[in-house]
Amino acid sequence: MSKPKQIIPEKVIGFKAPPQKSKWAYIDCQVYALGIGFSRDQMKVEDHYYTSELKDDDFRVFPTNATTICSGSEVFNMIIDCPGMPEFNPMALLHGEQETYLYKPLKVNQDYISEVELTDVADKKKGALLTSTCTSWECDESGKKGDKACMGKFKVFIRGIGGFGFPGKDKGPGYGVPKTAPTKTMTQKTDPNQAIVYRLAGDFNPLHIDPDMAAMGGFDKPILHGLCFYGISAKLLVEGLCAGDETQLKSISARFTSHVFPGETLQCKMWVNGTKVAFETSTVERGLAVAQGVAELQAQPKL
Amino acid sequence: MSKPKQIIPEKVIGFKAPPQKSKWAYIDCQVYALGIGFSRDQMKVEDHYYTSELKDDDFRVFPTNATTICSGSEVFNMIIDCPGMPEFNPMALLHGEQETYLYKPLKVNQDYISEVELTDVADKKKGALLTSTCTSWECDESGKKGDKACMGKFKVFIRGIGGFGFPGKDKGPGYGVPKTAPTKTMTQKTDPNQAIVYRLAGDFNPLHIDPDMAAMGGFDKPILHGLCFYGISAKLLVEGLCAGDETQLKSISARFTSHVFPGETLQCKMWVNGTKVAFETSTVERGLAVAQGVAELQAQPKL
Repeated sequence: MSKPKQIIPEKVIGFKAPPQKSKWAYIDCQVYALGIGFSRDQMKVEDHYYTSELKDDDFRVFPTNATTICSGSEVFNMIIDCPGMPEFNPMALLHGEQETYLYKPLKVNQDYISEVELTDVADKKKGALLTSTCTSWECDESGKKGDKACMGKFKVFIRGIGGFGFPGKDKGPGYGVPKTAPTKTMTQKTDPNQAIVYRLAGDFNPLHIDPDMAAMGGFDKPILHGLCFYGISAKLLVEGLCAGDETQLKSISARFTSHVFPGETLQCKMWVNGTKVAFETSTVERGLAVAQGVAELQAQPKL
Repeated sequence: MSKPKQIIPEKVIGFKAPPQKSKWAYIDCQVYALGIGFSRDQMKVEDHYYTSELKDDDFRVFPTNATTICSGSEVFNMIIDCPGMPEFNPMALLHGEQETYLYKPLKVNQDYISEVELTDVADKKKGALLTSTCTSWECDESGKKGDKACMGKFKVFIRGIGGFGFPGKDKGPGYGVPKTAPTKTMTQKTDPNQAIVYRLAGDFNPLHIDPDMAAMGGFDKPILHGLCFYGISAKLLVEGLCAGDETQLKSISARFTSHVFPGETLQCKMWVNGTKVAFETSTVERGLAVAQGVAELQAQPKL
């Protein structure tokens, strides 16, 4: 099948991948939790809810684990296969934004069925911003849908394929932070091998481990996954505003504005307005904002 | 079935567990490799052979991964079930010594079949030293044996069940290090969460994650797995003496003489004599020897 020369929005929007079933084993959730920095201190026993299967029925799946419920490589293949998409250089693809909506606490050893659809594409002149929406339901072994569990929007920016004129229709939640002092600031150091641990949760892009690939992307060394510091931001919000109760997080969305090198310290500034939170995550070492986001909590935080 | 009041050696020696099949997925070997400290520095690209599935056919399984080829809980259950064994307190069981013999490089996604047998028990007065020998072969999906891959002897000391008089017959390889200066000394820092990562390779004893269980064992905080610093010692031998070529390691055996707290720095002193190596691993922070061992290499190291 020949590829179009440029994006054909009406052939992109609505393109679907076959439904995919998934289930997290303990190790998947444990590696995800370690990957976003839980249990860096082994004496912080409350972190064991996310990292130790010995907690059995009290084991918790951190909400942003939802970002791994669909296979990233299947989403990537869907983009490649879409008849409305032109050829493009895979190294020109960057994760631009992520939205996660939680409807029900996530569970280990639970079958899920996910439907992924390309729901929007926007001409950004230098490239295209493409939205894949992944909706997941609990299901039984046969795949029969139960309760809706979560929804994620993966927005990727692909350089070099702009100019098709369609402005896009999904404006996103809107980002930006107040000029006032933040309500709360939390920090977390990442480990020099944070990306090597995080990737085992399911994001195997060589950019995050292979120095040669990182160099091709213009980086001195492999960079941390956007979804890793997205998860770290969510963790700091839950720790800073919800006393560690991750079920308080209803949604979290962020735009990635720069990269993080593993080993850097991340600082998350939070501005609370009722149940809404605006946040900005920066690297302390380079004083650079790497993500701006918004989150919604179940209840107004007691501060 | 009623338990004997004390160990009946002739009912212990020769007691076998049913053969068990196993296969390492990439994540199992990657987590093991991270657990013994590979890829702490993401720019040490030679470590990616053990931690990145992107190496495909060049992916390597570190030889001491053999210590996870049999399920530790199945070995433990075999000891409990053995009709020659009295009741004992599981918290009175300590890993005393470990021997590993490699016959063929280990492989990811390869089926193995393992036979575990209690091959010796020795009265140590204050307790019993019990040897479980696990021999593993490559096999096909049906379990049909191919080449012998490795053999491990797990020696556990169980306090409180000595006094049965049998001296044991397996004297082990003999430990002890020369008083001369070591041929080579290598060090490696462990991470504060080293045990929390290492345990995901398959050793889920709560002593290594739960501060309450550690306190019951008399420790201020959870301790590192003996098999973790055994693996780290093997890693330092391979890096220090074999230029990182793990296939040079024919066997490695060690006696655990003390415990390690995650976060401590381990120093391994090595004395080379032809293809034989005696070694001693200590914690730098407490100046305490934690393991003494011997190893055999395929060829005399070029130093």
